[in-house]
Amino acid sequence: MKPRVLVNGLGTIGKRVAHAVLLQDDMKLVGVATLRPNFVVANVMSKHGPLSNVDLYASDPSYISAFENAGFKVKGTLTELLENGKVDVVIDCTPGGVGEQNKQQIYEKYKVNVIFEGGEKARVAEMTFNSFVNFEQAKGKRYIRVPSCNTTSLIRTLHALDERFGIESVFAALVRRAEDPHNPSEGPINATVPDAHVPSHHGPDVKTVMPNLNIVTMAVKVPVTLAHVHMLSVKLKQPVEKKDVIQAFEETPRIALFRIGDGYTSTAEVIEFFRDILRPRYDMYEVVVWEDLLNVEGNNVYWSHMVHQEAIVIPENIDCVRAMFGITDKWTSIKKTDKSLGMIK
Amino acid sequence: MKPRVLVNGLGTIGKRVAHAVLLQDDMKLVGVATLRPNFVVANVMSKHGPLSNVDLYASDPSYISAFENAGFKVKGTLTELLENGKVDVVIDCTPGGVGEQNKQQIYEKYKVNVIFEGGEKARVAEMTFNSFVNFEQAKGKRYIRVPSCNTTSLIRTLHALDERFGIESVFAALVRRAEDPHNPSEGPINATVPDAHVPSHHGPDVKTVMPNLNIVTMAVKVPVTLAHVHMLSVKLKQPVEKKDVIQAFEETPRIALFRIGDGYTSTAEVIEFFRDILRPRYDMYEVVVWEDLLNVEGNNVYWSHMVHQEAIVIPENIDCVRAMFGITDKWTSIKKTDKSLGMIK
Amino acid sequence: MKPRVLVNGLGTIGKRVAHAVLLQDDMKLVGVATLRPNFVVANVMSKHGPLSNVDLYASDPSYISAFENAGFKVKGTLTELLENGKVDVVIDCTPGGVGEQNKQQIYEKYKVNVIFEGGEKARVAEMTFNSFVNFEQAKGKRYIRVPSCNTTSLIRTLHALDERFGIESVFAALVRRAEDPHNPSEGPINATVPDAHVPSHHGPDVKTVMPNLNIVTMAVKVPVTLAHVHMLSVKLKQPVEKKDVIQAFEETPRIALFRIGDGYTSTAEVIEFFRDILRPRYDMYEVVVWEDLLNVEGNNVYWSHMVHQEAIVIPENIDCVRAMFGITDKWTSIKKTDKSLGMIK
Amino acid sequence: MKPRVLVNGLGTIGKRVAHAVLLQDDMKLVGVATLRPNFVVANVMSKHGPLSNVDLYASDPSYISAFENAGFKVKGTLTELLENGKVDVVIDCTPGGVGEQNKQQIYEKYKVNVIFEGGEKARVAEMTFNSFVNFEQAKGKRYIRVPSCNTTSLIRTLHALDERFGIESVFAALVRRAEDPHNPSEGPINATVPDAHVPSHHGPDVKTVMPNLNIVTMAVKVPVTLAHVHMLSVKLKQPVEKKDVIQAFEETPRIALFRIGDGYTSTAEVIEFFRDILRPRYDMYEVVVWEDLLNVEGNNVYWSHMVHQEAIVIPENIDCVRAMFGITDKWTSIKKTDKSLGMIK
Repeated sequence: MKPRVLVNGLGTIGKRVAHAVLLQDDMKLVGVATLRPNFVVANVMSKHGPLSNVDLYASDPSYISAFENAGFKVKGTLTELLENGKVDVVIDCTPGGVGEQNKQQIYEKYKVNVIFEGGEKARVAEMTFNSFVNFEQAKGKRYIRVPSCNTTSLIRTLHALDERFGIESVFAALVRRAEDPHNPSEGPINATVPDAHVPSHHGPDVKTVMPNLNIVTMAVKVPVTLAHVHMLSVKLKQPVEKKDVIQAFEETPRIALFRIGDGYTSTAEVIEFFRDILRPRYDMYEVVVWEDLLNVEGNNVYWSHMVHQEAIVIPENIDCVRAMFGITDKWTSIKKTDKSLGMIK
Repeated sequence: MKPRVLVNGLGTIGKRVAHAVLLQDDMKLVGVATLRPNFVVANVMSKHGPLSNVDLYASDPSYISAFENAGFKVKGTLTELLENGKVDVVIDCTPGGVGEQNKQQIYEKYKVNVIFEGGEKARVAEMTFNSFVNFEQAKGKRYIRVPSCNTTSLIRTLHALDERFGIESVFAALVRRAEDPHNPSEGPINATVPDAHVPSHHGPDVKTVMPNLNIVTMAVKVPVTLAHVHMLSVKLKQPVEKKDVIQAFEETPRIALFRIGDGYTSTAEVIEFFRDILRPRYDMYEVVVWEDLLNVEGNNVYWSHMVHQEAIVIPENIDCVRAMFGITDKWTSIKKTDKSLGMIK
Repeated sequence: MKPRVLVNGLGTIGKRVAHAVLLQDDMKLVGVATLRPNFVVANVMSKHGPLSNVDLYASDPSYISAFENAGFKVKGTLTELLENGKVDVVIDCTPGGVGEQNKQQIYEKYKVNVIFEGGEKARVAEMTFNSFVNFEQAKGKRYIRVPSCNTTSLIRTLHALDERFGIESVFAALVRRAEDPHNPSEGPINATVPDAHVPSHHGPDVKTVMPNLNIVTMAVKVPVTLAHVHMLSVKLKQPVEKKDVIQAFEETPRIALFRIGDGYTSTAEVIEFFRDILRPRYDMYEVVVWEDLLNVEGNNVYWSHMVHQEAIVIPENIDCVRAMFGITDKWTSIKKTDKSLGMIK
Repeated sequence: MKPRVLVNGLGTIGKRVAHAVLLQDDMKLVGVATLRPNFVVANVMSKHGPLSNVDLYASDPSYISAFENAGFKVKGTLTELLENGKVDVVIDCTPGGVGEQNKQQIYEKYKVNVIFEGGEKARVAEMTFNSFVNFEQAKGKRYIRVPSCNTTSLIRTLHALDERFGIESVFAALVRRAEDPHNPSEGPINATVPDAHVPSHHGPDVKTVMPNLNIVTMAVKVPVTLAHVHMLSVKLKQPVEKKDVIQAFEETPRIALFRIGDGYTSTAEVIEFFRDILRPRYDMYEVVVWEDLLNVEGNNVYWSHMVHQEAIVIPENIDCVRAMFGITDKWTSIKKTDKSLGMIK
């Protein structure tokens, strides 16, 4: 039987996860819940939007009239739906910290399975999940967390090397986009803003999935909206050649190689590729490594990769549903997910 | 018989026009020609791209080997194709000024019909075309020009008012995007750059379609890539009420009304709408007027509208093919085009 | 006797006004008051800063310990100072709206003269002041308001034409900087944000000084920090020639003419001029008109000017002190102020 | 006798070096030479500019009339000046690569001493200079190179640690400003652009001064104009404590410590400090380390520092004149230079 999925929260991640669930043939989207009406909800639920036929639930009953005044048809409330046993798993895409509140106030009461996002602390769940690292351990877990965009990109690329060559240590410098493209209120405009924590939280977050990895990260925020860029210095446990690293990345799904020499000189041209191939919302689920910037010196590997903060975690969320319920094995899930999302590899 | 269309030039406009022609049932894309391989051509012609099954022609034979070295299959050259009478109309989307050279060196020789874009001077063609203003006059013309993005947006909104109320005079202040999103080399980064000509060329360009309009325009360039924004002060020949102007815009295809009050507070949220409804490349063919910013005082109307420079001229190009060959009447063409492109009105 | 001036509020305007008062020989800065310690206060009061020898007062006694913990020496409180009759005029540079509260809660009680800034509503004062328009009427007033940056720039340029030629009507499109350079938290990053009011408040604000002017303004906010740029369409009561307008601007202090043709192609190069001549903080007190962009057609004049939002109102604040106390006549004050600030004209 | 200095090239660096030479009492600015008139030359040579009384020489005689047409008085040509033995040292601040041409075509012929900038390859000179590392070796050299901004910042901070604790290895990720503030033509606008070389050239450039240092650098370019920011991961030869590193930086001139916790949360507020203390052109000669972001784990030190690309190399250029001619010892020169420039330490 197909697991019945409810997506709670229709922000940047929630609206994408809901759409991705709709594209799967082995799970069912029973609805989406959200707090209050806004332009994003209006967009995706409109007759032109991908969720036009999906039932909408109010996560807080006191906003039902606000939805109705804004022209939305509300099918019911989140708690009614859970009370009636209509949901096997909630994918909680609410803002950071709200998921933990929801767990305490709602999810535990109704004994529903939950997938949390990376905005939640790791303690909210029994495990933090990545398709490539710990798919099999997810089966039967009630609460699982899928880490955030930067962490996911690091896990994908580092795991590909760690399982082949062993990693001694990692230093990653993150150049973060300041805000998603749809939000004009956040800055900076002409400044570089160092992350107030050194090391940044990204290193420890990677360790929630790869606990033995020796990793330190630092971050700055810059005035761009398209994507994060990481610069990595990785020391392996053995010397390798450049072609070995390239091959490791080529063999790994969800890592795409682009070349400066082919004209992809910045995040802008890479995003243009995804616009040009008509990828919906130009969502780049892949982490992109600039192949011709990769450099190897003995045990040391250096590269830059690019992370589309809006989209990269979507495939791992879909896999996580399958892993939690033991629907397929790891590689079957990865392939199904990637095909459904039109990934290029 | 369906007109056979060749698109010459695969830049921002050419790649979109070619894709739009593919979506029509009453014209046929015989191929695309371009000068040399680059990442944009690679994107759209790739197996993932919308032009993957379209024949590629070299506009300059000396670049054939460059195409082949880059992995492209070249079907032939532009001039061979024209010589063999395989093309009824070329849509010339080459960089500004090249179209006129092509006319003198190629198109006149092969007596092919041509649609030029707004980067060319008006003198290149027998008329400058807009679907709403002079569709009927295009029939039988050999050379027609479709004006550029800013001009098209002004014609659409101003014509809607002029035909209903009469326009006495127009002043438009244009706040231009500095460069398209895919090009990271152009600035400015933290500056506002006035157009070096006052009045700017946009006013005279509108007059190539609406010759009796009394219009003056000024422009600045700012560090954004998404869209142009215009601020207009229009004096009508008679007093109107706000609802009359709203109605005029509502009744006109390709003008879409959005509201600040609904959360579309900037160009960013409007673009997000088109991403959220999965519009390919988020192309906004519509000119967007902020409805709740529109203000009327007696004869004077003030509003702001938003122009997606990459996409707004595409529907007019498609209409122009039909108009040139007298395939359908004006409103049939407008409706067919708009339906094929998934427009929201 | 020299009027004793207290500056209340040490933000973008307050810190500059305080410094400018220090540079005058016919008024005395008795101190600066501010709410709480922050990095700007630390900068200007530091041993390197221009206010290092100025007494600091707490505008709210409850923050005295916060100041002391942050290493500041507090001389006393604002109300003590006023109570002791040590101040003839407060220049209130607190955030918008706070000035009116201060008036009700403090200034009225101590019967002190006050100059308010443009962030306050016009009703806070007996008049809104501009050095060129109504200097003489300020004498003996207790509460005067100096309007904000955009308004000041419009008054300077428009008054110069109105007094010479008469103005029939004005339309101004404002392209506003989004935030001052020192604030990295405000956006937008890649968007153009229309002002939510059409017409914008700037037109009515100009009328607080030039009540008979027929003016409509619109505005957008763009991702720059350096300066505002205005595009103006002005209809005069008589036809003029370009040289007449140029001459009017040349004859008026605090209007500076720059030329695109000389390399000042944007706000960036104009600001670089003020850096290159070592103007403190590159403060551009002048409104800059691009001379070679100015265009005249019969009665109609079109131009663009540039407004340094951080600095343009400073000279009018200084003049206002002299006007309020009748220290000098208008032109003597303008010349003294401009010389003290190193203005280029 | 004071060395007679000529500055050749009046760009971002040249105009600052010339001004800095004027501020010294033990060297003499005999003039500035530049290729052709532009707005920067006009700014600094104007009656308001810091070089208003300095003689101007044409570096290419064929532009003399261009200078005169632009209203400049040209005292003579560069080669005349050299031929007449009027110059002891040229500080060549011409664009990258031109210095080497000048050496071959001019400087070798006239046997003049030359200081080159970091835009030149290291081979142009007998040594690459840094005040702290190799001041004493400069005496008697004819050709010396002062490295560029990023390199200078790395040398200052790394040398401070290397001489105290020994450095095992360095990885530095550079987040570069895209263009100086006065140039509105360069992008990117909304993109992050990886440096096309991994490792970047900055590591090898540091080695021209610190040849035994084991250093790898990577870089991206982002849409800011104010400053570069570096993120460093440094492995020392011994474990240290955070206070040791802080002390090392505190004891070193031209390294300034700022704190996020004091409100300096980004490059913007740090630059505002230099505006607020009236530093001419807000030139930040110091490399700024964020003290509260510095982190130490055993042998490993992590920090971020900020580099004002327009100004940081100026003090080293001044020191280099003294070092070359043996005018003072190292620390005397550093102190004189820093005092003359109003440095905060």
